[in-house]
Amino acid sequence: MLVREIGEFGLIRRLAELVSRPDPRVAVGIGDDAAVVSYDGPVVMTTDTLVDGVHFRDDWIDGISLGYKALAASLSDVAAMGGRPRHVLVSLAIPAEERVERIESLYRGIREASDEFAVTVVGGDIVSTAGPLVITVAATGVLAGSQPLRRNGARQGDLVFVTGDVGGSAAFVHLMRTGYSGALTPTEQWQLQQRHTRPKPQVRAVEALVQCQGCTSLNDISDGLSSELADIAEASGVHLDIDGERIPILPAVRRYARLAGQEPLVFALHGGEDYQLVGTVSSLSCGALLPLMEAYGVRLTLIGRVVDGEPGVDLLSGNGREALPPRGYDHFAAAPDGGVG
Amino acid sequence: MLVREIGEFGLIRRLAELVSRPDPRVAVGIGDDAAVVSYDGPVVMTTDTLVDGVHFRDDWIDGISLGYKALAASLSDVAAMGGRPRHVLVSLAIPAEERVERIESLYRGIREASDEFAVTVVGGDIVSTAGPLVITVAATGVLAGSQPLRRNGARQGDLVFVTGDVGGSAAFVHLMRTGYSGALTPTEQWQLQQRHTRPKPQVRAVEALVQCQGCTSLNDISDGLSSELADIAEASGVHLDIDGERIPILPAVRRYARLAGQEPLVFALHGGEDYQLVGTVSSLSCGALLPLMEAYGVRLTLIGRVVDGEPGVDLLSGNGREALPPRGYDHFAAAPDGGVG
Repeated sequence: MLVREIGEFGLIRRLAELVSRPDPRVAVGIGDDAAVVSYDGPVVMTTDTLVDGVHFRDDWIDGISLGYKALAASLSDVAAMGGRPRHVLVSLAIPAEERVERIESLYRGIREASDEFAVTVVGGDIVSTAGPLVITVAATGVLAGSQPLRRNGARQGDLVFVTGDVGGSAAFVHLMRTGYSGALTPTEQWQLQQRHTRPKPQVRAVEALVQCQGCTSLNDISDGLSSELADIAEASGVHLDIDGERIPILPAVRRYARLAGQEPLVFALHGGEDYQLVGTVSSLSCGALLPLMEAYGVRLTLIGRVVDGEPGVDLLSGNGREALPPRGYDHFAAAPDGGVG
Repeated sequence: MLVREIGEFGLIRRLAELVSRPDPRVAVGIGDDAAVVSYDGPVVMTTDTLVDGVHFRDDWIDGISLGYKALAASLSDVAAMGGRPRHVLVSLAIPAEERVERIESLYRGIREASDEFAVTVVGGDIVSTAGPLVITVAATGVLAGSQPLRRNGARQGDLVFVTGDVGGSAAFVHLMRTGYSGALTPTEQWQLQQRHTRPKPQVRAVEALVQCQGCTSLNDISDGLSSELADIAEASGVHLDIDGERIPILPAVRRYARLAGQEPLVFALHGGEDYQLVGTVSSLSCGALLPLMEAYGVRLTLIGRVVDGEPGVDLLSGNGREALPPRGYDHFAAAPDGGVG
């Protein structure tokens, strides 16, 4: 069935049912002019927009994963501020020729992420467009600690960390674009696909970072690790030395890169859409942070340090020291690295 | 200059400057992963999306007005909940061939509304699209009273009110679509244009409604007065008798309708995009409400009453009593009344 056959209000009713979940913090949810939710203290708020053909392609990601990922991207921004996500608003601009089933799949994925990360969809908007599908998710949350974790607090002597592994989503996009899947095992290909289609916002890592009390700066990796590191260096006015060999890269990414004649570090540094957290921690707090992260089930890797010098980032590798320029996805630049377009 | 020539990050810097304003409630504004704002108690949250060719046409509305209107639409939803708007997030999906100047105009209009209604832009997202411009504004606010003003509290004996006047935006859209402006004076045409391009969210009316303590239901008129009345009737489980002759219609709308061979009540009942408030008030509170509205400078008109009967709306006019079906803008239906497409 096409969206224009069911109509706006019929569609909204079906979607509202799909994402309905009990939440004692919601006084008014979907169905009135606005939602009313309980907060007591500072509110973290952010929004993220995904466009068909720019951020995703429907032959590379299924509808459920797309909904999951759209939510994950916004929740990741709340986490990157030291926040616990709580509520979201979902706005869709839908082509009239879109199938209802695809939009319902999208909402099933939104519901799945909503359950997994304990957030509730409290509203949104559904409109038609003559262009591609546009998904905007606004998310709100509370601070996990007493202060936000910003980008500008890195100090000389701090250590640079990253959660999980990076470069998987970019490797998958490369694989799909080139059509090369040669000697990858199905498991390896599946791992790359998961990195692209089911990114996990690192909400548990935030709890560990707040408890260790030594996190001095934090970003999530949407544009690319190099770009996020540059943001921290610039905002904090510090220099970062990054050890290229320590950057956590999935074995499947290394193997794909080798098979495809690519450099795995390029995927890891400039790929983007990893939705891992990168930040700095005071060296004294490191002893507390590592076991805390383990307790929360989050892999944490120390990849560098904050050193004396001009604001910027250097990459240390077998080739010695070289400046690491921020290179991520610019929406209006030619030759994007991270986009699917 | 085209947006793709300045690039995403250059554009964001320029736009952030345009909307920057002091706000002691903002701990972290534009420029980090998420904003952090002060709230103490319930948060009202809503989002609204406008699409080029569906909600607006750039030959019918200038860029500054478009930005103003995009903000106004979301603030109106906060007001319709009995809320005071506080902060907004603005997401844009921009065609790469768009001119920077148009986007800057848009942000000048956003800034203008932001100043006028004392709300602050605390973040957003800027992405590219192969389709038309899509503007999504998420707004948050606080409750003006102790409880939200919902749609579902209308009770038999209450009176139905509407703020301002209705039908002006629809008349302007009709005028632009037909190209007819015949015998309208420039002032009359300007009045219709203002209704379409500069709708005013009724934030002061909310203060009066909360103070009078007798408002039992509330909606803002985005889809059309008939549709909003039907929402209240259905949500409250009541019947509404509306006196067609009392519905406030601008003289310029009446004159345009007569000249164009149209029925002014059709614009007023089904046109939409008025962003006025419609609701019910207990009859005993009316004595308090009318002078309060006057004190806040808001025109209030009583247009009907809540009566015994099945949920629904009747229109009383010279023709007697007839059922008033909800007819507003359905995004995926044929022959829209309110859209510009």
